[in-house]
Amino acid sequence: MKNSFLENLNQGVLGLKPYEPGLPLEHTQKKLGLEKMIKLASNENPLGPSPKALDLLQGKMNSFSSELNRYPDGNAYELKEAISKKYCVDPNQITIGNGSNDLIEFVSRCFLREGKKAIYSQHGFAIYPLAIKATGALPVKSKAKNWGHDLELMIDLIDEKTKVVFIASPNNPTGTAKTLLEINDFLDNLPDDILVFLDQAYYEYIEGSEFDIPFSLIDDHPNLVISRSFSKAHGLAALRLGFCVSNPELSDYLNRVRQPFNANSLALNLGKVALSDQEHISKSVKINSSGMDRVKKAFTNLDFNYIESWGNFISFDAKQDSDVAFQYFLEKGVILRSLKVYEMPQHLRVSIGTEEEMDFFLQVLEDYEKDLSKK
Amino acid sequence: MKNSFLENLNQGVLGLKPYEPGLPLEHTQKKLGLEKMIKLASNENPLGPSPKALDLLQGKMNSFSSELNRYPDGNAYELKEAISKKYCVDPNQITIGNGSNDLIEFVSRCFLREGKKAIYSQHGFAIYPLAIKATGALPVKSKAKNWGHDLELMIDLIDEKTKVVFIASPNNPTGTAKTLLEINDFLDNLPDDILVFLDQAYYEYIEGSEFDIPFSLIDDHPNLVISRSFSKAHGLAALRLGFCVSNPELSDYLNRVRQPFNANSLALNLGKVALSDQEHISKSVKINSSGMDRVKKAFTNLDFNYIESWGNFISFDAKQDSDVAFQYFLEKGVILRSLKVYEMPQHLRVSIGTEEEMDFFLQVLEDYEKDLSKK
Repeated sequence: MKNSFLENLNQGVLGLKPYEPGLPLEHTQKKLGLEKMIKLASNENPLGPSPKALDLLQGKMNSFSSELNRYPDGNAYELKEAISKKYCVDPNQITIGNGSNDLIEFVSRCFLREGKKAIYSQHGFAIYPLAIKATGALPVKSKAKNWGHDLELMIDLIDEKTKVVFIASPNNPTGTAKTLLEINDFLDNLPDDILVFLDQAYYEYIEGSEFDIPFSLIDDHPNLVISRSFSKAHGLAALRLGFCVSNPELSDYLNRVRQPFNANSLALNLGKVALSDQEHISKSVKINSSGMDRVKKAFTNLDFNYIESWGNFISFDAKQDSDVAFQYFLEKGVILRSLKVYEMPQHLRVSIGTEEEMDFFLQVLEDYEKDLSKK
Repeated sequence: MKNSFLENLNQGVLGLKPYEPGLPLEHTQKKLGLEKMIKLASNENPLGPSPKALDLLQGKMNSFSSELNRYPDGNAYELKEAISKKYCVDPNQITIGNGSNDLIEFVSRCFLREGKKAIYSQHGFAIYPLAIKATGALPVKSKAKNWGHDLELMIDLIDEKTKVVFIASPNNPTGTAKTLLEINDFLDNLPDDILVFLDQAYYEYIEGSEFDIPFSLIDDHPNLVISRSFSKAHGLAALRLGFCVSNPELSDYLNRVRQPFNANSLALNLGKVALSDQEHISKSVKINSSGMDRVKKAFTNLDFNYIESWGNFISFDAKQDSDVAFQYFLEKGVILRSLKVYEMPQHLRVSIGTEEEMDFFLQVLEDYEKDLSKK
C-alpha cells in the first residue's frame, strides 16, 4: 500500500461496503429525461411531514432562524419529556438518536468489539451487519424462515462470544413482523446477558394488536432495547431523529457513546410536535392500509407472489432478476428498490405512496406483466 | 451487577464520562430569576447564522417543508461540489460530518481499538479523549507548553501502539494556534503511518497568514486529515455540519463508517449557501477581532492574565477557583465556561459576543475585580 497509515485501518472497517441509498428523484428524472417520475424506494411517508410540525416551523420561523447559531439542547429535555408522557416511560430510559441508525451504532459500540459476535437475520436491514462489522465484531447471519426472523434459530446460534441480537419488527425490506407472544417467548428463552435491539422504525404502521410490543416489556427484560423512528409515519426523514427506550442503567451508557449534540435543534423541536400529531399518524396509516390493499389485490390478479407486510412497503417476486426488473420500472418512471443485495435475487420492494402514485405504479406493473408474458 | 448484560459492556465505554455542554440560556435565566442574562459559553457566532442561508430558508421554505419526509442526499453531492470549488479540493477527498464531532469519531473508529493509542494535548478539546476511549484505545495526554500543544513532545510520546494524533489549531479552550511552519515540521518528523487529525473548527477566525494551514498540505502528507465546522463563523451550530478533507483513499474509508444519512437536509442546503457568504464571515471575524481587542485591554487594565487566542473566545486566569468564579459571573447574568475539567483550575473561558454583550461582560468583570480585591 502506498499510504502506509492505511495499514493501520481496523480489520472490520476494511470489510465495510457503503450502504446504497435509493436513487434520488430529481437527479434520476433529469438523467433519464422522463416527464413523470415517482419515488417509491425509501419507505418515506407519501403524505409529507406532520402538519403540526410544519405549523410550528412556520409559526416559529423567526425564532428558529435567529437561533441557528446556537447549539441544540444536548440533553433533549423537552423531547424526552414529550416521549415520556406519551409512552409512560421515564426520561432517563430514553436515548435520542440522529435517526435510529445512530441508536444501532450506540448499542454496537457499547457491546461489540473484535472477538465478539452479534446475530441478525437474513433479509434483515442492511445497517445491522455494517454497524457490527465497524466495531470489529463478527456479524452472524441467521437464516430466515418464511422471509422473517427465525427466532428459535437465532437462539441456537448464540455462543459465548455473542453479545447482541438485532431484531426488526416490522422488518425492512421483507415487512414481516413478530407478535408480542413470539418476542416474549424469545426473551424468556434467551440468556439474560445477551442484549436484544428491537427495531420498530415501522411501528406506527402495524395493524393487529397482537403485534404491538410495548415499552413496558423492558420492565421484565432489562436486556431489551426498543427503538423508534421519526422518519416513517411522522414524516421527518430529512431531519434525522429516532429514539430508544431501555433500562435506565443501559441508557446511561448509550448516552455516553452518543455525541453530545447528535440531534439538531429542528429535529428536536419538530419531533416533539410530530409525536403528538395523532391525526397525521392515523391519516398516514389509513392511506397506507388502503394502498397496501390495492397493491396486494393487483399482485394476486397479476399472479405475482408477495410477502405479507406490516410496514409501509411491500416486496414481491418480479419473476426475473431484480436488477433487470428494477431497470424496467425505472425507465417507466417508477423508482423501486432491487433486493438483490438482500439475497432476494428476484424481489423488488415498493413503498406505499399516495393514491395517485399507486395508480401510476399499478399501471406500470400491468405493463411489466404483459411484457414479461410476451417473452 | 443486577443486569448481567451490563457485564458485557466494552471496557472503554465504562470509563466514559459524558461531555458537559454549556448551560442553556433560557432555562438558566428562569431558574435564577434574572432579568438579563447572556451566554458567552459555547463559542457560538453572536451575529447569528449566515443571512444568505436564512434568505434561502425563507425563500425555499415551502419546498423545504414539503420535503421533510424525504431522506437527505446521503452523498451530499451539491455541498461537496461547493466545498470542492471553494477550496480547490476534489469531491472524493471530502467527508461530511454531523458536526465535526462526527469526523473525530470516524477517524477514531477507523484506526483505534483496544491495544492501540492516540495522542492529544493537555488542555485540548474534551471530545478527543472521549472518542478515543469509546473505541477501547488508550488516550495519551501530552503535557502542554505555554498552554498550547507541545508538538515535539507529542512526537516523543509515539510508540508502536500509537495510531492517531489529534491537533487543534486554534485549540479550544486555550485559543492557541500553530503556524504552517510548525505543522509542516511536525509532519516531516512524524512517522508516515501515524494519522494526524487537524481540527480547524475555528479556522475562519485566525488572523495572521502564517497560521493559515491549507488543504493542499495533504498532497505532501497523505496521513493528514483537516476538519472544518459550520458551527462557528458560519453560525449554523443548531443544524450540525462539518467536513474534513483527506487523501481520497482515506476519505473512502471514512465514508464507510459514516452513517449513510448522517447530515440532515437543512444542514446540507444551508451549509452550501453559508459557505459562500463571505460577507457574513468577514463581518463575524471583524466583530470578533474588535471584541477580542476590548477584552484583552480590559484584562490588562484589571490585571488578569489571559492566553493569547486565535479563536472566537479567550481564556483568563480568574485568580481563584474556576467554579467559584463561574458562579459569580452566572449570578450576575453572564454564562461563561469554567475550565476546571481542562486542568485549568483558575481559568474561565469567555466567548466573544456582540458589542452590547461585551459591554455587559466587561461591566461584570470590573465588579468581579473589585469584589476580589476587597477579599
